[in-house]
Amino acid sequence: MEIKEQKDYRKDFPLLNNNSSIYIDNAATAQKPQCVIDAESRFYEVNNANPLRGFYPLSLAATKEYEDAREVVRQFLNADSDKEIIFTRNTTESLNLVAYSYGINNLKAGDEIAVSIMEHHSNLLPWQMVARVTGATLRYLECEKDGALKDDTLKEGINANTKIVAVAQVSNVLGCVNPIKKIAKIAHDNGAVMVVDAAQSAPHMKIDVKDLDADFLAFSGHKLMGPMGIGVLYGKESILKNMQPFLTGGEMINSVTRDGATYAELPHKFEAGTVNAAGAVGLAAAIKYISEIGFDYIQQKEERLAKIAINGLKDHKHIHILGSDDYKNHTGIAAFTIDGVHPHDVSEILSSDGIDVRAGHHCAQPLLTFLGVNNATRASFMFYNTEKEAEAFVESVLNVRRRMGYDE
Amino acid sequence: MEIKEQKDYRKDFPLLNNNSSIYIDNAATAQKPQCVIDAESRFYEVNNANPLRGFYPLSLAATKEYEDAREVVRQFLNADSDKEIIFTRNTTESLNLVAYSYGINNLKAGDEIAVSIMEHHSNLLPWQMVARVTGATLRYLECEKDGALKDDTLKEGINANTKIVAVAQVSNVLGCVNPIKKIAKIAHDNGAVMVVDAAQSAPHMKIDVKDLDADFLAFSGHKLMGPMGIGVLYGKESILKNMQPFLTGGEMINSVTRDGATYAELPHKFEAGTVNAAGAVGLAAAIKYISEIGFDYIQQKEERLAKIAINGLKDHKHIHILGSDDYKNHTGIAAFTIDGVHPHDVSEILSSDGIDVRAGHHCAQPLLTFLGVNNATRASFMFYNTEKEAEAFVESVLNVRRRMGYDE
Repeated sequence: MEIKEQKDYRKDFPLLNNNSSIYIDNAATAQKPQCVIDAESRFYEVNNANPLRGFYPLSLAATKEYEDAREVVRQFLNADSDKEIIFTRNTTESLNLVAYSYGINNLKAGDEIAVSIMEHHSNLLPWQMVARVTGATLRYLECEKDGALKDDTLKEGINANTKIVAVAQVSNVLGCVNPIKKIAKIAHDNGAVMVVDAAQSAPHMKIDVKDLDADFLAFSGHKLMGPMGIGVLYGKESILKNMQPFLTGGEMINSVTRDGATYAELPHKFEAGTVNAAGAVGLAAAIKYISEIGFDYIQQKEERLAKIAINGLKDHKHIHILGSDDYKNHTGIAAFTIDGVHPHDVSEILSSDGIDVRAGHHCAQPLLTFLGVNNATRASFMFYNTEKEAEAFVESVLNVRRRMGYDE
Repeated sequence: MEIKEQKDYRKDFPLLNNNSSIYIDNAATAQKPQCVIDAESRFYEVNNANPLRGFYPLSLAATKEYEDAREVVRQFLNADSDKEIIFTRNTTESLNLVAYSYGINNLKAGDEIAVSIMEHHSNLLPWQMVARVTGATLRYLECEKDGALKDDTLKEGINANTKIVAVAQVSNVLGCVNPIKKIAKIAHDNGAVMVVDAAQSAPHMKIDVKDLDADFLAFSGHKLMGPMGIGVLYGKESILKNMQPFLTGGEMINSVTRDGATYAELPHKFEAGTVNAAGAVGLAAAIKYISEIGFDYIQQKEERLAKIAINGLKDHKHIHILGSDDYKNHTGIAAFTIDGVHPHDVSEILSSDGIDVRAGHHCAQPLLTFLGVNNATRASFMFYNTEKEAEAFVESVLNVRRRMGYDE
């Protein structure tokens, strides 16, 4: 497969030019192109006011920028309406919003919540909380070694008692892509709502919430090259409109008396307090940037990098890739263990070679326990990484055991 | 009183130079000095990584910047420990955190929550929610016309059944400063915890949480010239350590199993998901900026501006200032009504003179109802405003009725 290099995107990223290390911890957070940094700065320099509140031109301009950013997100997800796009702080807050506002109010003892065993803690702890508060049962959909969720597993785990199915579109450890559309169909056939954690998918593939038929879908700006402190919750309007607000305060009410309040329309009902307009504007810039590059190129490039990493390591008898043997099923993520070497030491050694990877439980302890490991090292590539960087990573990993005193 | 102009601070604010309007909606959000904008940009350009997670130099640098920012906030509030400083999105989220995590778990039917009648919706709706969920009673401390909370009011309103007292340090409408230290003493004498909404005080006066003896205190970065999307909750360590987490997800756990989790130490227990490190760094820059200017100068300057505004309007028979007749009791805020002219029209007319003010209920509807008005216009000054701007505001307001066709 020949990749057509569209241009040198690295030039767009100040940090990649200011820092000589090989940054392959992109699944933790992505680097920011200049256009994102500039969009936030420009908001503060030219249009800063409290949106949605003032009638003077500056506040109206701030409101327009904020709502325009919402429209950019709507298009990005192919949602029907801007009312379905709620700005949050990050994926974690988005999922907690669903857990508190939908989960606690709609579940009861005897109901079930189905989550995959590979969920990030952000898509697991909120459901543990809902189960604890409501008396519902949390049920795990266990995957195969390569991350596959088999049809039998889905059909056994999702039944007439299931009220919520919460699954990541891409595992942050295995990198596998889960069949969300199929799972949503099974969820809906059983009367459950489908919650999608898109934190690891949104930066890497086209998401169409209507095609997936997701009821809720959450992602973070910062993993998508947007600013920190801004995230998104998509929810179907028909569901959101019947939900109670989560956070309460300014800007999400119609009127307040001593005894109670009536709430604003969607989406503002779920956006209490002063919004992070600059963050939303930065996220919109990131989405425009990624859209101009195009997911066709991004996926080709990231697959090529994963091929170098996975194929370079998988045949070493003391190195064990978590997940599929097939690099095509990794979404640029290569998590692995090395016999006899703790992942923290792996990470240290790679760091001494100027390679930035993550070591630990990756906020997915139940998955690691299920796989029989405590910790792992993870490299995660983004389209702006180079094949040379992937090769340097492989070379460094292949040398770890020797540097720790082993013969091979 | 002669104010020593320290320097021309307006030069530090790009928006004030890019925009020719008179921005006096500072209580809604403040403008950002270049150093704050640069601090956020620089984080992304030089130190961007996911803090608290990686072992490589970039992640360690991001962690250091983030935790250094926490220390800056700790010093700003004179808190005992960094464990007592929790980064949130804004004041609203800080107060909701206390309501969900402390309020719901510690109150029961028969208990009381005391709030002042002048609370912003952010410090009211969360307590209405706690009352609804727990069966506790929400009790209002009513103020005098000038905003004063009389000793008798406090002693009648706070009793042995009171478990939470929640009061703003500065009213966002009246501008009066509430006697938090005294109220906290009465709260503690009755076994209640004291929650302080410092959204409108933190940008204008020195806060010492130990001197106030506040149990919780919340403020927003954006009103303090920091970025949007970052806020602070201070809580006493002895209370925070016994509280359940609010949002759950990554980075706030020690370990997670299929059935549950053990939580991380303070303050990370309350910071779920990827933190807004760039926002925290920007807030720290804002705090350093404000600290260099000094609250002595800020208060003198803002008092001078309030004097021009309040004294310029208060004797007009058709203009009614909300709150005290004494400009010294306004913290730079001048909210008012004009007989026969709707505040939205006042705001429009001022806007046509290039003056940016806010009109509406100011997220304080129970106060406005108590004062017998539906809406008001509000000007709110910051030290970077000029006396000429305050004079132009007065002149414009004094002309409103004539421009609407009245004789005087």
